[in-house]
Amino acid sequence: MDLKAQIYDIGRRARAASKALAQLSSAQKNAGLLAMADEVTASQQELLSANARDVERARANGLSSAMLDRLTLTPARVASMAEGIRQVAALPDPVSQIISRWTRPNGIVISKVRVPIGVIGIIFESRPNVTSDAAVLCTKTGNATILRGGSEAIESNLAIAAALSRGAARAGLPQDAILLVPTTDREAVKLMAGMDQYIDLIVPRGGHALIEAVVASARMPVIKHYNGICAAYIDKDADLKMAEEIVINGKTQRPGVCNALETVLVHRDIAERFFQTVAPALLAKGVEIRGDERVCAQLGDKARPATEADWNTEFLELILAVGVVDSLEEAVAHIESHGSHHSDCIVTANEAAAERFLNEVDSATVYWNASTRFTDGGEFGFGAEIGISTDKLHARGPMALEELTTYKYQIRGTGQVRG
Amino acid sequence: MDLKAQIYDIGRRARAASKALAQLSSAQKNAGLLAMADEVTASQQELLSANARDVERARANGLSSAMLDRLTLTPARVASMAEGIRQVAALPDPVSQIISRWTRPNGIVISKVRVPIGVIGIIFESRPNVTSDAAVLCTKTGNATILRGGSEAIESNLAIAAALSRGAARAGLPQDAILLVPTTDREAVKLMAGMDQYIDLIVPRGGHALIEAVVASARMPVIKHYNGICAAYIDKDADLKMAEEIVINGKTQRPGVCNALETVLVHRDIAERFFQTVAPALLAKGVEIRGDERVCAQLGDKARPATEADWNTEFLELILAVGVVDSLEEAVAHIESHGSHHSDCIVTANEAAAERFLNEVDSATVYWNASTRFTDGGEFGFGAEIGISTDKLHARGPMALEELTTYKYQIRGTGQVRG
Repeated sequence: MDLKAQIYDIGRRARAASKALAQLSSAQKNAGLLAMADEVTASQQELLSANARDVERARANGLSSAMLDRLTLTPARVASMAEGIRQVAALPDPVSQIISRWTRPNGIVISKVRVPIGVIGIIFESRPNVTSDAAVLCTKTGNATILRGGSEAIESNLAIAAALSRGAARAGLPQDAILLVPTTDREAVKLMAGMDQYIDLIVPRGGHALIEAVVASARMPVIKHYNGICAAYIDKDADLKMAEEIVINGKTQRPGVCNALETVLVHRDIAERFFQTVAPALLAKGVEIRGDERVCAQLGDKARPATEADWNTEFLELILAVGVVDSLEEAVAHIESHGSHHSDCIVTANEAAAERFLNEVDSATVYWNASTRFTDGGEFGFGAEIGISTDKLHARGPMALEELTTYKYQIRGTGQVRG
Repeated sequence: MDLKAQIYDIGRRARAASKALAQLSSAQKNAGLLAMADEVTASQQELLSANARDVERARANGLSSAMLDRLTLTPARVASMAEGIRQVAALPDPVSQIISRWTRPNGIVISKVRVPIGVIGIIFESRPNVTSDAAVLCTKTGNATILRGGSEAIESNLAIAAALSRGAARAGLPQDAILLVPTTDREAVKLMAGMDQYIDLIVPRGGHALIEAVVASARMPVIKHYNGICAAYIDKDADLKMAEEIVINGKTQRPGVCNALETVLVHRDIAERFFQTVAPALLAKGVEIRGDERVCAQLGDKARPATEADWNTEFLELILAVGVVDSLEEAVAHIESHGSHHSDCIVTANEAAAERFLNEVDSATVYWNASTRFTDGGEFGFGAEIGISTDKLHARGPMALEELTTYKYQIRGTGQVRG
C-alpha cells in the first residue's frame, strides 16, 4: 500500500470509529478509559523497552540532552500517564449537554446540543506522553483520534497507541478509536492536512515550523498553540508590592512555559519606585533585565539594552524585557503590536484603568491584578487541557474537553411546515 | 501600488479600524448603521446608475437572464437594502455579553466575555446586495469587513460600499470599517486568503468553485456554506398526512434554496400507503420523482429511475429522489453517506426512533416531525443571518450575529500568584 492509500485508509477507519464513539454513553467511554489506563500499566515493560530503543537511536543521532529528557519514559512517567487517563475518566462529560433550548411561536422546540467534533488529528513532536494525553481527551469527548508523532519517538508512540487500542477494544470501544500513523515519512503530515473528508480538526502540538507546515496545507480547521509573549503593565496606580509578586511569579516560577512573563511595561510616574523595589527583587532572582533607554539610564550596568527583537521574543528563560511607557494607551499599543495575544496583565488599583485594559487588549486571557501563570486548564477549573490556543475561533485560551466538542441543533415538532 | 501592496494596505487599514470598532458601544454602532441606511437611501440614484453600467456590460457579455436578475438593482431593491440595515440596527448586540463567570478557590474571578472576531473577509459573487447585507452584520458585531465581490457587479459594489462608508464616517465610525477590494483581479482572492495577519475569518458566499478557491489557499479559518442535500425519512410509524405536508413543504414551497428537500426515504412497511397518498400529491404539484427499483416498480411510468448521481444531487428544482429502505439504520446510513450534513428530518410517531435519528444523523440541524425549511436564521429567531454553515466548528447551521463574535477571558484578582 503506498503512503497515500495508507493514510486515507487510516482516515476512513477513524471516520467509521467516530460514528460509533459519538453514540457511546459517558459510562461506556469512561470504562474504556479505565481499561486503557490498566493496559498502560500492564504494558509498562513493553513501553519502556520500545522507548529505550528510541532513546538509544536518538543518542546516536546526537539529540540534545533536553530533547533526550523529553523523549525518555521511566516507570514513574508511565505510572503518571496511566494516572492521567484515570483523572480524565473522572471528569464530567460535556457531550449531550443542552447548551440552550427554546420554543418558537409556531411550537417547534429548538435544542442546541453539544456533540463530538468527529475525527481529530493530533500532530506532535518528541514527547511520547502526548500520544496518551491527547488521545484520551479526544476519546472522553467521543472523538476518534489520528495521531502523528515525531520520528524520534516512533517506537514509543507505537507501543503506547497499541496499549491504548487494546484497552479500548477490551472495553468494547471501537478498535480504531485511536490510530497512530505508523510512518515517519514527512509527507504523511501533508496528506493528513489535505484529508478534510476524514479529519474535522487538526491540532498541531509543537514548534513554529511544525505548525506552519500544517497551516500551509490544511483544508480543515487548525487550532494553533503558538508561543506566549506575555506582558505585565504596571500602572501608575499599582500597588508595588503586588506588582513585585506578580512580576516575580510570572517570570520566575516556571520560566519555560507559554504563560510566563516576557515583558514588563512600567508607567513613567511609578518607574522610579519600580526601579527601587521590583528591579532589585528581579535581579536577586537571577533575572537578566533588558531595558529600554529609560530603564538603562536608571539601572546602569544592572540592565543591558533591549534590542528590537527582544520585545518580540518568547525567552522561556530568566530574561525579561522591561520598558517605561508614558500612558496606559502606550502600554496597550505595545502589547497589541509586540505581544502574541496569549495572556497579558495590568497591575493597578484604578478600576477604570483596569477595565480599559481588559477591554482593549485583544488577548485570549487578560488579567487585572493576577499572575498570567493562571492561563491553564487546571487553574481555570477545566480539569485537563489539550493546550492553550492562540487562535480566535472555536477555542481561545485553555482548550479543554468542551473545546473538543461542537454542537448540532435538534428540532422537535408536531408536523410544522413553513408558510 | 502593485496588487499585493494594495491588498495588504486594505488589510492594515481594516485591522486598525477593527480595534476602534471593538470599543464602540451598541448605541454608537446602531447610530452608524442608521446613518448607513440613510446614506443608501440618499444615494439611490447613484447606486442605480452604477448598477445600470454593470447590467449593460453583463448583457453585452451574454450573462444568463437569471444572473442578470440577480445583478439588477431597482428602487425597491435599494429600499429593501436600506430597510435591512435598519432591521439589523434594531437587533440585540451580542458583544460584551458575559457567557459565563466563575470564581476559583484562590479568589480570581474568571469571566468569559463575547467580543468581536476582528476583521472578517467576505468573498461573494454577483448579487450586489450581499455587499450591504454582510457588511452591516459585521459592523453590528464590531468587526471590520473586507469585501470582495464578483467582477460583474464591481461598479454597483463600489457605489454601495462608498455609501456605507459615508454613513459610517458621518456617524463617527471608523472610515475603514467597511472596505471593498476595488479590483476584479482574481489574484486578489488568493492574496486575501494568505493574509492571516490581517484577516481573522473568511466567509465565501457563492458556488463550489469560489469556496474551493478560498479553502485551497486560506491560512485563516474559513466558514463554508456548501449546498444542502436534505432528506426526509418517513418511518414505518409515520403519520402519513403529516409526512405528506412535510414532504410537499420541503420540496415545493421554495425549491431553489439550500434547506429544500432533495431526497425522501420511505420505510418498506409504509411504502405502499406512501405511494397511494404522498406520491400522487407530489405529482400533482409537478414534482418529478426519481425512484429506486422498488419505487419504480410501484409507480411505473409516474417515476423515472434514479441514477447514482441523483442521490448526491442538490436539484434546486421540482425533482425528488425517492427510495425505499428496510430500516431506520439504512435511512441513517444513506443520509450519512449521500447527504451534505445540512438539514435532515424523520417523520414518525415513535419517540425512540426519533431520538435515535436525532442523535445518529450528523447534520447541523436534525428534525423530528417538522419541515427542513425551518433551517434559517429568521425562523430560528436569530433576526438575521450571514448564511447557513455546513462546517462543524465555530458556526454550524444558521450563522447569525452571535457567530460573528468570539470570546476572551477577563480575569480579575487581588494580587493572586501561582504557587
